[in-house]
Amino acid sequence: MRATSRLAPMKRHSMPAEPIGEFVPSPRLLLGPGPSLVHPRVLRAMAAPLLGHLDPEFLKLMTEVQLLLRRLFQTGNRFTIALSGTGSAGMEASLVNFVEPGDPVLVGINGVFGARMATIVERCGGKPIRVEAPWGRIVEPETIKEAIGRAGPVKVVALVHAETSTGVEQPLAEIGRFCREQGSLFLVDAVTSLGGLPLEVDRWNIDVCYSGTQKCLSCPPGLAPLTLSDRALAAIKARKTPCQSWYLDLSLVADYWAEAKRTYHHTAPISMLYGLREALRLIDEEGLEARFGRHRTNSEALMAGLGALGLAPFAEEGHRLPSLNAVTLPAHIDDAPVRTELLQRYGIEIGGGLGSLQGKIWRIGLMGESSQKSHVLTLLSALEEIFLRRRWLSRPGTALEAAARAYTGGGGFQT
Amino acid sequence: MRATSRLAPMKRHSMPAEPIGEFVPSPRLLLGPGPSLVHPRVLRAMAAPLLGHLDPEFLKLMTEVQLLLRRLFQTGNRFTIALSGTGSAGMEASLVNFVEPGDPVLVGINGVFGARMATIVERCGGKPIRVEAPWGRIVEPETIKEAIGRAGPVKVVALVHAETSTGVEQPLAEIGRFCREQGSLFLVDAVTSLGGLPLEVDRWNIDVCYSGTQKCLSCPPGLAPLTLSDRALAAIKARKTPCQSWYLDLSLVADYWAEAKRTYHHTAPISMLYGLREALRLIDEEGLEARFGRHRTNSEALMAGLGALGLAPFAEEGHRLPSLNAVTLPAHIDDAPVRTELLQRYGIEIGGGLGSLQGKIWRIGLMGESSQKSHVLTLLSALEEIFLRRRWLSRPGTALEAAARAYTGGGGFQT
Repeated sequence: MRATSRLAPMKRHSMPAEPIGEFVPSPRLLLGPGPSLVHPRVLRAMAAPLLGHLDPEFLKLMTEVQLLLRRLFQTGNRFTIALSGTGSAGMEASLVNFVEPGDPVLVGINGVFGARMATIVERCGGKPIRVEAPWGRIVEPETIKEAIGRAGPVKVVALVHAETSTGVEQPLAEIGRFCREQGSLFLVDAVTSLGGLPLEVDRWNIDVCYSGTQKCLSCPPGLAPLTLSDRALAAIKARKTPCQSWYLDLSLVADYWAEAKRTYHHTAPISMLYGLREALRLIDEEGLEARFGRHRTNSEALMAGLGALGLAPFAEEGHRLPSLNAVTLPAHIDDAPVRTELLQRYGIEIGGGLGSLQGKIWRIGLMGESSQKSHVLTLLSALEEIFLRRRWLSRPGTALEAAARAYTGGGGFQT
Repeated sequence: MRATSRLAPMKRHSMPAEPIGEFVPSPRLLLGPGPSLVHPRVLRAMAAPLLGHLDPEFLKLMTEVQLLLRRLFQTGNRFTIALSGTGSAGMEASLVNFVEPGDPVLVGINGVFGARMATIVERCGGKPIRVEAPWGRIVEPETIKEAIGRAGPVKVVALVHAETSTGVEQPLAEIGRFCREQGSLFLVDAVTSLGGLPLEVDRWNIDVCYSGTQKCLSCPPGLAPLTLSDRALAAIKARKTPCQSWYLDLSLVADYWAEAKRTYHHTAPISMLYGLREALRLIDEEGLEARFGRHRTNSEALMAGLGALGLAPFAEEGHRLPSLNAVTLPAHIDDAPVRTELLQRYGIEIGGGLGSLQGKIWRIGLMGESSQKSHVLTLLSALEEIFLRRRWLSRPGTALEAAARAYTGGGGFQT
């Protein structure tokens, strides 16, 4: 800025230590809890010139995004959109539109994100019924049913499909049937599952389901895919009070996304929607079955390699996410120094533990574009080198060999 | 998607009319109420590979964005950030963090966005004191003072600096001094002013100020620049109840943006922040004075040209925005057909009227990259052609000549 006398003098926080030049991020292999790597086609799509948010060409793009999102959520829900905010905005929208003061809401809590849902329920004036399970374990369907048996019917049952803080995959189908019988809305956080593992909104009787773009969809963060069943829409219509949020009021947002209306509500994040459309096209081209299989295979190989390094799975057996691989650190392994070395020397990001798990687990994301054999091998190789230097490992190739076995089904040379 | 038996069948809304191919938007000259044109450097910046939202390189970028935003807001406010949502999210955050149930809030209403603020105040349980003025006129400072004289002290006085629905620029300095005397927080919507016309947060005693990226900053929509004075921060600390929004709870958001903390709250929209940083660098290179001058000059030339076509300014004289030029349509000019022809034949987007002004005014944005002489001339030429064909104009060049006069100060050939 050229300083001139008419501009107010800057008092604090205004002098840069060095000039602010072009931003050139260092290369990063993103294997943390999100964002995941983004395909160059998505980045290129985001660099296209803008259209207005009411331009017929942009409205057509919105319709296409809706269609691709329905395939991904495996739903026929008319209301299937991308909300203008991150996954956390999706969580907030999913709660504030349904929870009115005094409403009882059952929330399954076995990690950070379940706890966050309960907090938001309280901020709506709702009454959270917290059904807790140890971090790393699922919330047992029976426990949920018993809690409702004691507390009486609830308006909403809210569960996290993929607990990003622990790597646990919550089973949903049984609770979906139970909610339908009870007349409760079934709300599911699918931030770390959508596009990475099976999620069948219609078949599992899910009424409200949201996700984020920066996990298994491999699109930058900034949008929250969201789908509502007709039962959920009816619940919004039947509200006694207005939604406490205007920005996230889905009855207003719906009028912009409805093809027949397109009523202006707020300016849509145009470039982000360009990116999401391309990310969804990539998913469509790969096919859901192939994509889910890829996530499973790479996760199994990674876990085999980590196991060979002495890092045991944190999440309960049979309920481990392929997208977010949590492992317990043995006492001799320091958390922060290893992650710092991974980032600074190898350009690899993995995640540490949240809350009480800080320093105790690692969270390794293999989501979307990040779930590739080459990335699994690169990470295991880097860990081997770090472990060898610190004398936590004696033989190079230990983890890679275990991964190779997993990739080949354990078989050797076949004649 | 390859159909397989394991996937739930799609019931409705799932079959595309045609295959969803690569998205190639038609070229558009964006001269509506936003989004504005985006500089190729900004689009390129957004296409850079991602960093994690806690990566040291990304945290440095956030610090730089804060520094550049402080220069732009002309403030020393420590709390100066880019919120993860569009301008409307900025509005909601600015209200829900300060308005508690029962709080009286004075809202100036002379268009759509003032009315929206009053709606949000109600959704917070606050008591909006609506000070209304006819659309197209400012809210008179005296009227505001009288209203407070009658109603007693208010917690917040909320005004729209640049009413995007009418093209009116609201004077702020006098009310800022008055608020400071009264002990009210002064809240300003600067969505269509920040970066296009003078806005001096500190000198005008503004406590809460938000904007959007897609107007005079010429960055795609998706972020809301936001600055809070220390008085505003103290008001947040003094709240009796938790903020009703978790996603927009600025006490939590602050801990992520604070250099000393960087506590995870939600995943920042990485690519959007890349883009914003570059858009702010472009502003810094141009200089605020030069930028404001450019917006003024192009607005004057546009209005001269439109005047020659019989389109009179809608907003009150002396209070017309250079960024959003509203003109009244004479009775013989049809709104929608002309705008449709502009878009479809010329690729030019301008805005129509909102609410009761639908069909009665046009809103022509000259914001950021959209405020260029060549764009003014291109629009006037297109309007001339359309008007000539419809026999609303007899002489080609009428509007262009008026604009040329404005650009040259009315002078002819000087020897």
